[in-house]
Amino acid sequence: MSLTNRSLVTIDDLSDGEIEALFSLADEMAESPADQAGLCQGKIMASLFFEPSTRTRLSFEAGMLRLGGRVITAVDIGASSLAKGESIADMARVVGSYADIIVIRHPWEGAARVVADYAGVPVINAGDGSHEHPTQTLCDLYTIRKEGRAIKGLRIALWGDLKHGRTVHSLIYALARFGATILFRPGPGLEMPKHVLTRLSTEYKGELKTCRNLNQELDRKLFPVDAIYVTPSSPHQLAMLPDISVGVELKAGIDALYVTRLQKERQAPTAEVQELEKGYPVVDKKLLKGKEFAKTLVMHPLPRVDELTHEMDADPRSMYFKQAAYGVPIRMALLAVLLGAKEVTIPKEEDSFIPKIDHPVYKRDSGVKCPNTNCVSNQETEVRYIKPEFRIVSRQPLTLRCIYCDHEMHPQYVASSEWHQRKLENKKYHSADSHFAHKIKPENLIVFASEDEARAQQFKPSSHIRP
Amino acid sequence: MSLTNRSLVTIDDLSDGEIEALFSLADEMAESPADQAGLCQGKIMASLFFEPSTRTRLSFEAGMLRLGGRVITAVDIGASSLAKGESIADMARVVGSYADIIVIRHPWEGAARVVADYAGVPVINAGDGSHEHPTQTLCDLYTIRKEGRAIKGLRIALWGDLKHGRTVHSLIYALARFGATILFRPGPGLEMPKHVLTRLSTEYKGELKTCRNLNQELDRKLFPVDAIYVTPSSPHQLAMLPDISVGVELKAGIDALYVTRLQKERQAPTAEVQELEKGYPVVDKKLLKGKEFAKTLVMHPLPRVDELTHEMDADPRSMYFKQAAYGVPIRMALLAVLLGAKEVTIPKEEDSFIPKIDHPVYKRDSGVKCPNTNCVSNQETEVRYIKPEFRIVSRQPLTLRCIYCDHEMHPQYVASSEWHQRKLENKKYHSADSHFAHKIKPENLIVFASEDEARAQQFKPSSHIRP
Amino acid sequence: MSLTNRSLVTIDDLSDGEIEALFSLADEMAESPADQAGLCQGKIMASLFFEPSTRTRLSFEAGMLRLGGRVITAVDIGASSLAKGESIADMARVVGSYADIIVIRHPWEGAARVVADYAGVPVINAGDGSHEHPTQTLCDLYTIRKEGRAIKGLRIALWGDLKHGRTVHSLIYALARFGATILFRPGPGLEMPKHVLTRLSTEYKGELKTCRNLNQELDRKLFPVDAIYVTPSSPHQLAMLPDISVGVELKAGIDALYVTRLQKERQAPTAEVQELEKGYPVVDKKLLKGKEFAKTLVMHPLPRVDELTHEMDADPRSMYFKQAAYGVPIRMALLAVLLGAKEVTIPKEEDSFIPKIDHPVYKRDSGVKCPNTNCVSNQETEVRYIKPEFRIVSRQPLTLRCIYCDHEMHPQYVASSEWHQRKLENKKYHSADSHFAHKIKPENLIVFASEDEARAQQFKPSSHIRP
Repeated sequence: MSLTNRSLVTIDDLSDGEIEALFSLADEMAESPADQAGLCQGKIMASLFFEPSTRTRLSFEAGMLRLGGRVITAVDIGASSLAKGESIADMARVVGSYADIIVIRHPWEGAARVVADYAGVPVINAGDGSHEHPTQTLCDLYTIRKEGRAIKGLRIALWGDLKHGRTVHSLIYALARFGATILFRPGPGLEMPKHVLTRLSTEYKGELKTCRNLNQELDRKLFPVDAIYVTPSSPHQLAMLPDISVGVELKAGIDALYVTRLQKERQAPTAEVQELEKGYPVVDKKLLKGKEFAKTLVMHPLPRVDELTHEMDADPRSMYFKQAAYGVPIRMALLAVLLGAKEVTIPKEEDSFIPKIDHPVYKRDSGVKCPNTNCVSNQETEVRYIKPEFRIVSRQPLTLRCIYCDHEMHPQYVASSEWHQRKLENKKYHSADSHFAHKIKPENLIVFASEDEARAQQFKPSSHIRP
Repeated sequence: MSLTNRSLVTIDDLSDGEIEALFSLADEMAESPADQAGLCQGKIMASLFFEPSTRTRLSFEAGMLRLGGRVITAVDIGASSLAKGESIADMARVVGSYADIIVIRHPWEGAARVVADYAGVPVINAGDGSHEHPTQTLCDLYTIRKEGRAIKGLRIALWGDLKHGRTVHSLIYALARFGATILFRPGPGLEMPKHVLTRLSTEYKGELKTCRNLNQELDRKLFPVDAIYVTPSSPHQLAMLPDISVGVELKAGIDALYVTRLQKERQAPTAEVQELEKGYPVVDKKLLKGKEFAKTLVMHPLPRVDELTHEMDADPRSMYFKQAAYGVPIRMALLAVLLGAKEVTIPKEEDSFIPKIDHPVYKRDSGVKCPNTNCVSNQETEVRYIKPEFRIVSRQPLTLRCIYCDHEMHPQYVASSEWHQRKLENKKYHSADSHFAHKIKPENLIVFASEDEARAQQFKPSSHIRP
Repeated sequence: MSLTNRSLVTIDDLSDGEIEALFSLADEMAESPADQAGLCQGKIMASLFFEPSTRTRLSFEAGMLRLGGRVITAVDIGASSLAKGESIADMARVVGSYADIIVIRHPWEGAARVVADYAGVPVINAGDGSHEHPTQTLCDLYTIRKEGRAIKGLRIALWGDLKHGRTVHSLIYALARFGATILFRPGPGLEMPKHVLTRLSTEYKGELKTCRNLNQELDRKLFPVDAIYVTPSSPHQLAMLPDISVGVELKAGIDALYVTRLQKERQAPTAEVQELEKGYPVVDKKLLKGKEFAKTLVMHPLPRVDELTHEMDADPRSMYFKQAAYGVPIRMALLAVLLGAKEVTIPKEEDSFIPKIDHPVYKRDSGVKCPNTNCVSNQETEVRYIKPEFRIVSRQPLTLRCIYCDHEMHPQYVASSEWHQRKLENKKYHSADSHFAHKIKPENLIVFASEDEARAQQFKPSSHIRP
């Protein structure tokens, strides 16, 4: 499948093979940048940043310019049309008629998907709220690869603000897909959101272990992790997941340490934030003296604040400035393929590839809304045209995942659209965990946010529901 | 007359023939965009936006880049030099020495004219307060033409905020010149300003009918308009204006419906605005079901808010995204001709063309000021060098139109500079509507804002003025 | 010494010969701008403006584009990474990996030096707080040269805000080096900072005369200056500085009048500022009628406010719009040489050149800090990695000049690192003006901000210091 004219909204929009192909092309871009100056001649990239950013925007723009393309930029949008009450769909359609490709950063989760739906040209997500930041993930993986490490079997520790960091969320799915072992070391109160963990354990075939007592086990020899995710190193062993010994894993050393800063701007500036700041773990020379860090790649998506000391900058293990620098060739490669200026050969997937699960879609107008207030589907200017839409990722417990922001919800009441002879008295709603509920075919499923909602739509409680 | 090196400040800066020529060139630009990539090589466009804008700025920039030119952009100017108290004339002179052409948007009415006066390079007005936005008008007219409709005889309804919308003000003069019939459908309290209506009826040879009772006449078959402006369909019939039957006009259908949003940002955010918002008329599928709208082009300069529902987006009558998309070829054509990169053949004007009236200019230092507080000539930083200047557009009643913002004023007192033997006792001032006043030649006319002003300049009341 | 890959942080980074070479290249750029369009093809300039600016930024960008290069711009940085707490060193390293050259404006004094230290690519200072603005100085000197005047022996008066104007600070050192006679005409309360005057008189071999009674001497024939700096017109006469007669100097006329505006944004907006504004001297036609101004070049770095009246704009002596226009060829020349796209021949220095003094460097961690609160070395985000560093520019009185912002300090206590046998009882500190202090070799000098600081580092008072 060609990459031309496609969009990159989440890291899952790319298969493992496509990612590998992009990396090969990025190598080419980095090796002979001057040869690329004609690739995107005559093409225009629009860079639309609804949130301030220097690094990401400038690297996209530098990438496009090095390909011979041109750039139109709007960083002031928050203050302009949007303030006038315009929907992002309108904005997408209009800018899509000016430019050949759009790069967008937006504070709302799912905004990039909406833009991709309406722009009529390829769209790249440069960060949507706390949701995803897939090109950062490409830089991260590429850095690991350039250092000669394989992702499969990589032991990587994620450090810091695992709650708000979108770079971590995009990264973790890719790591799982490629078969890495992931250790979680959040700051207190900054644990990985439940929906990410759930997705990890249900969709990527690895095993998630929470480690309440890890501290004791490790006898303070390592930083305290609160969970480990292990994917089998060989696809043929999927069925016989080893009972991982954390001790063993750690003794073998940490291959990579992925540090992130506290995303203060995603939180109300309260005393609570100061609390989080105080307890935030710091990576410094002292910590990295440990034997398990001897060959650790120290990574950071930048900007950093105090969580990674400047004394590490000259250390050969420090990768973060390289990560940033790789942003240009990676984005050059991505822009070139999406614009059709370059074709890549996608390596044939090995059978090890974790196949994408095609969850049934739920998009009835039955009153359910995404629970995430920051989701694009809940914004005043967007509800005019966006209808909530979910993937039914599990029936037991019933789990709907928002197609925009990936937040999950567990509705308590359901019905079937196959009521008998369409008579009102047969329109019954059921408890979502009832025997009857499980038998409803996905295409017939009706989901209610509450009993009130069910009744408002003329459904009556089934006999198993107490009044 | 060549378009090279000229500026476009108001739509009146272009003759009908020049507009036609631009449209033919825009066709060429749209048909083979890749062929234009060398036209403006080596040229630099400065885009100076003192007010936030995404759409207009990006389409200008995309246009210039597609012509092979380069762009320097300042969207942060409000916060920089201006805040330091610099005049826009200084800014114009400086940027004029960096760039080959300037595109400017500014909140002050008349600002673009000042920039054009001082820049030394062509200047394009991309919106000056509530005054004009001539390139939007070009897009609007071009859209109509591309749909195979002629402007001459076009029945177009203007909808919404006719008071603040600069796009409507630029559009209306062009429509009148080309001979359209215009129906006004303002939101309550958002009627077309009086000076625009006056100008319409005095300068463009059509007839303006205000329709207080139109509602009743139409028996609610159509939306309530408050005025209709009809230009004779044939120039040879100028003398025999038909007694227009509104019923007839409407039965024949509306050719175009030009919807605008409430320009909230041009008003103090008071309870009054909320009132305006509440009464604002909405265009939706239901309205457009009417027979008279069967072939109506639904237009909107965007951004839209709630006045035009999203459900119309897929409707074949909806033109607004096309209007926006045409912004690029139209602006390419304009940039190319003003920069002298392309010559166009101006069609010989038919005798139908409504000739521009050359009103005498008034620029004495006699104390009269433009009544518009938002006019560039009234700003603290600009009065240092701008002298008020007017066109005397009528003598009965005496009407002065500001050359910067087109607002009109009716001074009550005048004098003649030909006082007898220059003796003080002969310096008399008169009532502007007196017999004597009408006899003063325009070049001798002295106008006073008040009796006090006249006296301050050593003039005495004539015998006809009561003490 | 080639200019390729060098940075321009202060005007002292360029020798007189290098400045002359740049001017010759600027002539070439101005004469045939079209021929330069291939020079920087494929090169990217990053323009990083942490303070609003239109003029300077746009002229850099126009220059780069006219050289065929491309530009990435961030004017919103204040609001982005920086707000997230990132250091400018990190920002410099990252952007240095995207772009081939960086132009930076920053409110902190010394920020440009830090960026140059970390970027890995050439860096141009486009203004750092009240410190320097060297490319403006190049434009100023170039303007004078283009008008056929030599800097050597030029009689130039500096007018207005000599306290905060960074353009004046960069200019004055260059003027002194080239041998100009400088008259100071500050607004009341806006005198040239003492450290600038000290440096002038100690480093550039000219003589500084303060003129308290000049007003009386001149009998109001000229504007009141408060100091004159005279460099000998011939280098061979260094030893025999004439006793300058101010009367004589002024009778010969003023060659150039360099007007600056009140830098309100560098001050708290208090009643005091209003006071300064009221007393601010104005340059107008009346002043310039004086015989001594008959051939005066009237200069201004712009933006101007009220200190230089618009009536002067058409006067042939007015140079300020030319100064601004020269910004493009000057910056083209600079960009081309720093990027190695053009080699220049540096004229052999005459023996007249005032040699740069190589002051010893002080960078011990002994508690001394730059006294300038706006210095980059004192900022919360930067102290993580910046260590204070000074040049010891004088021993009597002991004077340390901050290498970042050039502010000077006079520490009161010193010690020697050569204490006897490294025994604690031999670690003594001394008064900085004591006989013993003067004998300490620069490389052994330890400087303390206070006695407390000395004691905190286990030094004891020498017997000459009273308890």
